[in-house]
Amino acid sequence: MSDDPGLEGLAFNVFAKACPSRGTLEHVTGRWGSLTLGALHEGGARFNELRRRVDGVSEKMLSQTLHALERDGLVHREAQPTNPPRVDYRLTPLGTEVAERLLGLIHLVEGRMPQVLAARESYDAERAPVTG
Amino acid sequence: MSDDPGLEGLAFNVFAKACPSRGTLEHVTGRWGSLTLGALHEGGARFNELRRRVDGVSEKMLSQTLHALERDGLVHREAQPTNPPRVDYRLTPLGTEVAERLLGLIHLVEGRMPQVLAARESYDAERAPVTG
Repeated sequence: MSDDPGLEGLAFNVFAKACPSRGTLEHVTGRWGSLTLGALHEGGARFNELRRRVDGVSEKMLSQTLHALERDGLVHREAQPTNPPRVDYRLTPLGTEVAERLLGLIHLVEGRMPQVLAARESYDAERAPVTG
Repeated sequence: MSDDPGLEGLAFNVFAKACPSRGTLEHVTGRWGSLTLGALHEGGARFNELRRRVDGVSEKMLSQTLHALERDGLVHREAQPTNPPRVDYRLTPLGTEVAERLLGLIHLVEGRMPQVLAARESYDAERAPVTG
């Protein structure tokens, strides 16, 4: 719960609002953070290739997301000395570890969508206005 | 990617922006969704007890979060016939499955915070303004 990075043995706890782990969890699980990590797990990519993989992300949001993930040590950004300059993004070993857990969650959610959609239907039906 | 809940064999894909699985992933991984599912994994609870477990959540946000999770079939809400009325929340079997994956991710992030904080420090140091 401390901001002191020297305290290796400290117990971090996302349930405590002041703990810095909560911010990292949000970068990792946020709308675009989770999809960007998942997309990079397919392999490193340039910015525009990533934009294609993460359908619907704006240039601004992808750029902000990549900066936050890079600052947390999850994504490595490498500018190639070419002309025009070319920037590649890839997961760090830590980012790969996080992306694997995330993909486990993503695949679980995708696989359970028939149940989720059935639950929504019955939830909405119970609350439908009575007519006639 | 279809909204038709009858298509059990359909491949859902969170990377496609129109897929309903993207919304469910957001409910599950959103700032308060992930913490609420994690907190309920400790055991069912009443609203105020949940508010204590999820440090920093407002009444309004917890209420919205619980409704979204209930609609997706992840949380069960049970009003007890007592006076005053008492409402208990607990995970459904599907919610338990999702919470377990989430907690795996949460514990990984908490355990890697020393590396994350060290990465932030070196990121910020490289970008510090040159003085003197």
